Amino acid sequence: MFEVHPKLAEDCITIGSFGLCRLLLMNDANYPWLILVPEREGVMEIYQLSQEHQQQLLRESSRLAQGLAEDFGADKMNIAALGNVVPQLHIHHIVRYRNDPAWPAPVWGKTEAKPYQHGQIEVLRQRLHRLFADLAPVS
Amino acid sequence: MFEVHPKLAEDCITIGSFGLCRLLLMNDANYPWLILVPEREGVMEIYQLSQEHQQQLLRESSRLAQGLAEDFGADKMNIAALGNVVPQLHIHHIVRYRNDPAWPAPVWGKTEAKPYQHGQIEVLRQRLHRLFADLAPVS
Repeated sequence: MFEVHPKLAEDCITIGSFGLCRLLLMNDANYPWLILVPEREGVMEIYQLSQEHQQQLLRESSRLAQGLAEDFGADKMNIAALGNVVPQLHIHHIVRYRNDPAWPAPVWGKTEAKPYQHGQIEVLRQRLHRLFADLAPVS
Repeated sequence: MFEVHPKLAEDCITIGSFGLCRLLLMNDANYPWLILVPEREGVMEIYQLSQEHQQQLLRESSRLAQGLAEDFGADKMNIAALGNVVPQLHIHHIVRYRNDPAWPAPVWGKTEAKPYQHGQIEVLRQRLHRLFADLAPVS
Protein backbone atom coordinates (compact mmCIF):
# COMPACT_ATOMS: atom_id res chain seq x y z
CA MET A 1 0.00 0.00 0.00
CA PHE A 2 1.69 3.18 -1.21
CA GLU A 3 1.56 6.35 0.85
CA VAL A 4 3.43 9.62 0.34
CA HIS A 5 6.04 10.08 3.10
CA PRO A 6 4.61 12.27 5.91
CA LYS A 7 7.32 14.93 5.45
CA LEU A 8 6.51 15.26 1.72
CA ALA A 9 2.79 15.30 2.53
CA GLU A 10 3.43 18.14 4.99
CA ASP A 11 5.62 20.24 2.65
CA CYS A 12 3.68 19.70 -0.59
CA ILE A 13 0.28 19.89 -2.26
CA THR A 14 -0.91 16.86 -4.26
CA ILE A 15 -1.62 17.79 -7.89
CA GLY A 16 -2.40 14.41 -9.48
CA SER A 17 -0.94 11.18 -10.79
CA PHE A 18 0.81 10.44 -14.10
CA GLY A 19 0.33 6.67 -13.84
CA LEU A 20 3.57 5.64 -12.16
CA CYS A 21 4.28 8.86 -10.26
CA ARG A 22 2.35 11.08 -7.93
CA LEU A 23 2.86 14.78 -8.84
CA LEU A 24 3.36 17.09 -5.85
CA LEU A 25 3.79 20.87 -5.74
CA MET A 26 6.32 22.08 -3.16
CA ASN A 27 4.57 24.72 -1.06
CA ASP A 28 7.26 27.32 -1.75
CA ALA A 29 6.33 30.24 -3.97
CA ASN A 30 10.02 31.13 -4.45
CA TYR A 31 10.25 28.62 -7.32
CA PRO A 32 7.87 26.57 -9.47
CA TRP A 33 8.96 23.31 -7.80
CA LEU A 34 7.32 20.00 -8.64
CA ILE A 35 8.14 16.56 -7.26
CA LEU A 36 7.53 13.12 -8.78
CA VAL A 37 7.07 10.23 -6.34
CA PRO A 38 6.86 6.75 -7.90
CA GLU A 39 3.83 5.10 -6.28
CA ARG A 40 5.81 2.06 -5.17
CA GLU A 41 6.38 1.14 -1.55
CA GLY A 42 9.91 0.90 -0.11
CA VAL A 43 11.90 2.28 -3.05
CA MET A 44 14.80 4.63 -2.21
CA GLU A 45 16.88 4.68 -5.40
CA ILE A 46 15.93 4.88 -9.09
CA TYR A 47 17.86 1.66 -9.84
CA GLN A 48 15.65 -0.25 -7.38
CA LEU A 49 12.64 0.20 -9.69
CA SER A 50 12.07 -2.46 -12.38
CA GLN A 51 13.51 -1.66 -15.82
CA GLU A 52 10.00 -0.97 -17.06
CA HIS A 53 9.21 1.42 -14.23
CA GLN A 54 12.58 3.17 -14.62
CA GLN A 55 11.71 3.86 -18.24
CA GLN A 56 8.23 5.07 -17.31
CA LEU A 57 9.75 7.34 -14.66
CA LEU A 58 12.08 8.79 -17.30
CA ARG A 59 9.17 9.40 -19.69
CA GLU A 60 7.10 11.11 -16.98
CA SER A 61 10.13 13.12 -15.82
CA SER A 62 11.10 14.33 -19.30
CA ARG A 63 7.54 15.25 -20.16
CA LEU A 64 7.17 17.16 -16.90
CA ALA A 65 10.53 18.91 -17.34
CA GLN A 66 9.87 19.93 -20.93
CA GLY A 67 6.31 21.07 -20.18
CA LEU A 68 7.44 23.16 -17.22
CA ALA A 69 10.45 24.59 -19.06
CA GLU A 70 8.28 25.73 -21.97
CA ASP A 71 5.18 26.88 -20.13
CA PHE A 72 7.03 28.61 -17.28
CA GLY A 73 9.83 29.98 -19.49
CA ALA A 74 12.63 28.40 -17.44
CA ASP A 75 16.22 29.54 -17.85
CA LYS A 76 17.21 26.06 -16.61
CA MET A 77 15.54 23.00 -15.16
CA ASN A 78 17.07 21.46 -12.05
CA ILE A 79 16.28 17.74 -11.66
CA ALA A 80 17.46 15.82 -8.63
CA ALA A 81 16.95 12.65 -6.62
CA LEU A 82 18.59 13.31 -3.24
CA GLY A 83 16.63 11.78 -0.36
CA ASN A 84 19.08 12.29 2.49
CA VAL A 85 16.26 13.49 4.74
CA VAL A 86 13.22 11.78 3.18
CA PRO A 87 14.33 8.31 2.05
CA GLN A 88 11.23 7.61 -0.10
CA LEU A 89 12.34 8.02 -3.74
CA HIS A 90 11.23 11.43 -5.00
CA ILE A 91 12.57 13.47 -7.89
CA HIS A 92 12.68 17.25 -7.72
CA HIS A 93 11.86 19.24 -10.90
CA ILE A 94 12.57 22.90 -10.24
CA VAL A 95 12.08 25.75 -12.71
CA ARG A 96 15.05 28.06 -12.30
CA TYR A 97 15.39 31.68 -13.38
CA ARG A 98 18.49 33.84 -13.48
CA ASN A 99 16.74 36.27 -11.11
CA ASP A 100 15.40 33.73 -8.61
CA PRO A 101 16.46 33.97 -4.94
CA ALA A 102 19.12 31.22 -5.07
CA TRP A 103 20.52 31.49 -8.63
CA PRO A 104 22.98 30.10 -9.63
CA ALA A 105 23.20 27.93 -6.48
CA PRO A 106 20.97 24.90 -5.97
CA VAL A 107 17.79 25.85 -4.07
CA TRP A 108 18.27 23.69 -0.98
CA GLY A 109 19.08 25.60 2.20
CA LYS A 110 19.14 28.99 0.46
CA THR A 111 15.80 30.56 1.40
CA GLU A 112 12.95 29.93 3.79
CA ALA A 113 9.97 28.35 2.04
CA LYS A 114 7.34 31.00 1.17
CA PRO A 115 3.95 29.25 1.36
CA TYR A 116 1.48 29.92 -1.47
CA GLN A 117 -1.79 31.73 -0.83
CA HIS A 118 -4.80 29.44 -1.30
CA GLY A 119 -5.88 31.24 -4.48
CA GLN A 120 -2.42 30.82 -6.02
CA ILE A 121 -2.48 27.08 -5.43
CA GLU A 122 -5.76 26.68 -7.29
CA VAL A 123 -4.49 28.74 -10.23
CA LEU A 124 -1.35 26.60 -10.40
CA ARG A 125 -3.30 23.36 -10.06
CA GLN A 126 -5.51 24.30 -13.01
CA ARG A 127 -2.52 25.42 -15.07
CA LEU A 128 -0.76 22.11 -14.48
CA HIS A 129 -3.87 20.08 -15.34
CA ARG A 130 -4.27 22.06 -18.59
CA LEU A 131 -0.58 21.53 -19.37
CA PHE A 132 -0.63 17.77 -18.65
CA ALA A 133 -4.00 16.55 -19.85
CA ASP A 134 -3.47 12.95 -18.66
CA LEU A 135 -2.76 14.01 -15.09
CA ALA A 136 -5.37 12.01 -13.15
CA PRO A 137 -6.90 13.33 -9.93
CA VAL A 138 -5.87 11.54 -6.73
CA SER A 139 -8.69 10.83 -4.32
CA MET B 1 32.49 17.56 -32.34
CA PHE B 2 31.92 16.85 -28.64
CA GLU B 3 34.17 18.38 -26.03
CA VAL B 4 33.79 18.38 -22.27
CA HIS B 5 32.99 21.92 -21.04
CA PRO B 6 36.21 23.70 -19.91
CA LYS B 7 34.91 24.15 -16.34
CA LEU B 8 34.17 20.41 -16.01
CA ALA B 9 37.55 19.61 -17.58
CA GLU B 10 39.20 21.85 -14.97
CA ASP B 11 37.32 20.44 -11.96
CA CYS B 12 37.35 16.75 -12.94
CA ILE B 13 39.51 13.82 -14.00
CA THR B 14 38.42 11.78 -17.03
CA ILE B 15 37.87 8.11 -16.13
CA GLY B 16 36.48 6.65 -19.36
CA SER B 17 33.40 6.37 -21.57
CA PHE B 18 30.32 4.15 -21.20
CA GLY B 19 29.27 4.53 -24.82
CA LEU B 20 26.90 7.46 -24.59
CA CYS B 21 28.42 9.20 -21.58
CA ARG B 22 31.88 10.32 -20.57
CA LEU B 23 32.60 9.37 -16.94
CA LEU B 24 34.36 12.07 -14.91
CA LEU B 25 35.63 12.01 -11.32
CA MET B 26 35.13 15.28 -9.45
CA ASN B 27 38.50 16.24 -7.97
CA ASP B 28 37.10 16.48 -4.44
CA ALA B 29 38.16 13.82 -1.95
CA ASN B 30 35.32 14.82 0.41
CA TYR B 31 32.93 12.54 -1.48
CA PRO B 32 33.13 9.79 -4.12
CA TRP B 33 31.59 12.05 -6.79
CA LEU B 34 31.21 10.91 -10.39
CA ILE B 35 29.68 12.81 -13.29
CA LEU B 36 28.14 11.49 -16.51
CA VAL B 37 28.34 13.78 -19.55
CA PRO B 38 26.44 12.60 -22.65
CA GLU B 39 28.88 12.96 -25.54
CA ARG B 40 26.47 15.05 -27.59
CA GLU B 41 27.11 18.66 -28.55
CA GLY B 42 24.74 21.44 -27.47
CA VAL B 43 22.48 19.47 -25.10
CA MET B 44 21.43 21.20 -21.86
CA GLU B 45 18.45 19.16 -20.66
CA ILE B 46 17.79 15.40 -20.52
CA TYR B 47 14.58 15.82 -22.57
CA GLN B 48 16.62 17.30 -25.45
CA LEU B 49 18.29 13.93 -26.04
CA SER B 50 16.56 11.50 -28.43
CA GLN B 51 14.31 8.89 -26.78
CA GLU B 52 16.94 6.26 -27.49
CA HIS B 53 19.73 8.30 -25.90
CA GLN B 54 17.54 9.16 -22.91
CA GLN B 55 17.06 5.45 -22.30
CA GLN B 56 20.76 4.77 -22.71
CA LEU B 57 21.56 7.60 -20.28
CA LEU B 58 19.17 6.02 -17.76
CA ARG B 59 20.81 2.60 -18.17
CA GLU B 60 24.31 4.06 -17.73
CA SER B 61 23.16 6.17 -14.77
CA SER B 62 21.43 3.32 -12.95
CA ARG B 63 24.35 1.00 -13.49
CA LEU B 64 26.77 3.62 -12.22
CA ALA B 65 24.59 4.45 -9.22
CA GLN B 66 24.08 0.82 -8.22
CA GLY B 67 27.74 -0.06 -8.71
CA LEU B 68 28.90 2.90 -6.64
CA ALA B 69 26.29 2.34 -3.93
CA GLU B 70 27.31 -1.30 -3.50
CA ASP B 71 31.08 -1.00 -3.92
CA PHE B 72 31.46 2.18 -1.86
CA GLY B 73 28.83 1.21 0.75
CA ALA B 74 26.75 4.38 0.27
CA ASP B 75 24.15 5.37 2.81
CA LYS B 76 22.41 7.21 -0.05
CA MET B 77 23.10 8.12 -3.66
CA ASN B 78 22.48 11.72 -4.72
CA ILE B 79 21.76 12.07 -8.45
CA ALA B 80 21.24 15.48 -10.00
CA ALA B 81 21.19 17.37 -13.29
CA LEU B 82 21.51 21.04 -12.34
CA GLY B 83 23.64 22.99 -14.81
CA ASN B 84 23.04 26.55 -13.61
CA VAL B 85 26.77 27.32 -13.89
CA VAL B 86 27.90 24.80 -16.55
CA PRO B 87 25.08 24.54 -19.12
CA GLN B 88 26.43 21.38 -20.83
CA LEU B 89 24.22 18.50 -19.65
CA HIS B 90 26.00 16.59 -16.90
CA ILE B 91 24.56 14.35 -14.22
CA HIS B 92 26.10 14.20 -10.76
CA HIS B 93 26.28 10.81 -8.99
CA ILE B 94 27.47 11.38 -5.44
CA VAL B 95 28.05 8.68 -2.82
CA ARG B 96 26.75 10.06 0.45
CA TYR B 97 27.53 8.89 4.00
CA ARG B 98 25.85 9.88 7.23
CA ASN B 99 29.24 11.09 8.48
CA ASP B 100 30.30 13.04 5.38
CA PRO B 101 31.06 16.78 5.69
CA ALA B 102 27.70 18.00 4.30
CA TRP B 103 25.22 15.33 5.46
CA PRO B 104 22.23 15.57 5.29
CA ALA B 105 22.45 18.70 3.13
CA PRO B 106 23.23 18.51 -0.59
CA VAL B 107 26.97 18.85 -1.21
CA TRP B 108 26.98 22.04 -3.27
CA GLY B 109 28.37 25.10 -1.52
CA LYS B 110 29.04 23.22 1.74
CA THR B 111 32.78 22.57 1.71
CA GLU B 112 35.83 23.61 -0.28
CA ALA B 113 36.88 20.95 -2.75
CA LYS B 114 39.75 18.83 -1.35
CA PRO B 115 41.88 17.77 -4.35
CA TYR B 116 43.00 14.14 -4.49
CA GLN B 117 46.66 13.20 -4.28
CA HIS B 118 47.97 11.75 -7.54
CA GLY B 119 48.27 8.25 -6.07
CA GLN B 120 44.68 8.32 -4.84
CA ILE B 121 43.42 9.17 -8.31
CA GLU B 122 45.17 6.17 -9.85
CA VAL B 123 43.76 3.84 -7.18
CA LEU B 124 40.26 5.17 -7.81
CA ARG B 125 40.65 4.97 -11.58
CA GLN B 126 41.64 1.29 -11.34
CA ARG B 127 38.83 0.56 -8.89
CA LEU B 128 36.25 2.12 -11.24
CA HIS B 129 37.60 0.23 -14.27
CA ARG B 130 37.40 -3.05 -12.33
CA LEU B 131 33.87 -2.20 -11.21
CA PHE B 132 32.65 -1.23 -14.71
CA ALA B 133 34.39 -3.58 -17.09
CA ASP B 134 32.95 -1.97 -20.24
CA LEU B 135 34.30 1.47 -19.34
CA ALA B 136 36.39 2.33 -22.40
CA PRO B 137 39.51 4.49 -22.15
CA VAL B 138 39.25 7.98 -23.64
CA SER B 139 42.23 9.08 -25.68
